[in-house]
Amino acid sequence: MSETVAEVGEFRLIERFTRHFGTTDAVLLGPGDDAAVVAAPDARVVACTDMLVEGNHFRRDWCSAADVGHKAAAVNLADIAAMGARPTALLAAVCAPQDTPAEWLEGLASGLADEAAAVGAAVVGGDTTRGDQLTITVTALGDLEGRAPVTRAGARPGDVIALAGKTGWAAGGLNVLSRGFRSPGALVGAYRRPQPPYAAARDAALMGVNAMIDISDGLLADLGHIASASGVAIDVDTAALPIPEPMRNAAEALGSDARRWLLTGGEDHALAAAFPADVLLPEGWRRIGSVAEGGGVTVDGRKWSGPTGWDHFATS
Amino acid sequence: MSETVAEVGEFRLIERFTRHFGTTDAVLLGPGDDAAVVAAPDARVVACTDMLVEGNHFRRDWCSAADVGHKAAAVNLADIAAMGARPTALLAAVCAPQDTPAEWLEGLASGLADEAAAVGAAVVGGDTTRGDQLTITVTALGDLEGRAPVTRAGARPGDVIALAGKTGWAAGGLNVLSRGFRSPGALVGAYRRPQPPYAAARDAALMGVNAMIDISDGLLADLGHIASASGVAIDVDTAALPIPEPMRNAAEALGSDARRWLLTGGEDHALAAAFPADVLLPEGWRRIGSVAEGGGVTVDGRKWSGPTGWDHFATS
Repeated sequence: MSETVAEVGEFRLIERFTRHFGTTDAVLLGPGDDAAVVAAPDARVVACTDMLVEGNHFRRDWCSAADVGHKAAAVNLADIAAMGARPTALLAAVCAPQDTPAEWLEGLASGLADEAAAVGAAVVGGDTTRGDQLTITVTALGDLEGRAPVTRAGARPGDVIALAGKTGWAAGGLNVLSRGFRSPGALVGAYRRPQPPYAAARDAALMGVNAMIDISDGLLADLGHIASASGVAIDVDTAALPIPEPMRNAAEALGSDARRWLLTGGEDHALAAAFPADVLLPEGWRRIGSVAEGGGVTVDGRKWSGPTGWDHFATS
Repeated sequence: MSETVAEVGEFRLIERFTRHFGTTDAVLLGPGDDAAVVAAPDARVVACTDMLVEGNHFRRDWCSAADVGHKAAAVNLADIAAMGARPTALLAAVCAPQDTPAEWLEGLASGLADEAAAVGAAVVGGDTTRGDQLTITVTALGDLEGRAPVTRAGARPGDVIALAGKTGWAAGGLNVLSRGFRSPGALVGAYRRPQPPYAAARDAALMGVNAMIDISDGLLADLGHIASASGVAIDVDTAALPIPEPMRNAAEALGSDARRWLLTGGEDHALAAAFPADVLLPEGWRRIGSVAEGGGVTVDGRKWSGPTGWDHFATS
């Protein structure tokens, strides 16, 4: 039997967490004091925060503790990457019911640390507290390495819209799990542990991409954010977005619409970007649409009917 | 009737939040993109995160939404101040049940923004999501202005232990509210809206204090953190900690122990520090003890019997 967090107590729990965290050259002062100190070499820091709530963003019977840790880190690291920045550090605040196994929270800590380490970042601090619902808030910090931040506002008419990473797989995985199935593994795995295309984001930043966004609300919704921030129209070319075989099969088996997963599913944390038309797209990017004067997002030149993504307060 | 967050929806809610946030010269890119960009003038950033959970850290019938916002900001800004840093920015992640009045969350946003503005910082980003329990996670960033961070580890034998701000008032206020009373106002107000001694922290940092800590777990518990991080013994002189009249009266009326509030109550977010013995303490600081070789914390030379502070997972 694993001890619960109540049995372990806050201070011992934090010690058990901290063992997993590792360090990097950017960590000038790690966990254990009132705050951490992280290098910000170009005198700016990029920062974002995202919260995962049990029952809403994850279920303990669907995902391992390490999966949740990886995801909580990835959703934030993808935001940093989407700004064209190099992630440097994470902070994690965890609210847990008193009967949560301490082992589960250790798994969470190891997942957070491993995903951070995969991009050269480290967990530098956090908070633990008790509550009724398992809730994990991660903050990520990043370094722009002297470059201008890549915002959502830089797309220009004539730009190419490109995608790095996959979309729709996590939505498919969630559908599969919701119906009580555990396969196909490619979909379920994508839901459990999204893999943002960190390297592709960096390459895009290095070559001067015009606008970039982490797709967390769904491809169309997030392209809508670029369109509205940039004051442009975006058209998506579905011929460039073939439905992968395992996704088509799973959707057919479940009576779902694979195209809808692809165009409106969040949680894969792919990246969308607007590149100048004349550039050779870096590795990992593929053209999926174009930018024109106007506003809004169309699909094959037509208005998309149906929801474009995810509203976290809407009743689904 | 106020609209609920479900009725308002995530995107409009974020707009209504963001209206309150203001800006400063340090905000290079504010809310609205995947991440914010904040100035880090000396190429380092100080960062911490703290979570407030309804029912554990606050109750909506005891505190206004603005109170909770002020507190969520203050607990983090105090940590930044305790490192000897100047707070620059906050990020706030809010998890709220769908029936939460949008007005309450706007009050929260205004409280966060006002407390940040009071120290020259601004709210630069955040996240909103739904869940069963109102939970607010704030991350604070700060700038060391070229100085070394003030840690818990720098206290040396011979140092003077000094206190800035008040302790025990918030614990008294919580006791008063728990028994169903609303006065005395000085105690209840201290619980609702702690006032960390930001200016005193900065003065201490400027004059080269040896160690400093934000008192969030209780004076003795937090001095224990300095003692153990510094490898020293700390003795607290209660003659220097007279019990204020309103606190004594309230404790007597409730059959509580005012000295225990003073020595072990957290949540006022006072600061404790170790100063070199020969320095004139900056304004706002008063001597309350001394540092010697050894380990642990004593009160008037004797072991303190009873709890020293707050363990967030202990059953109270």
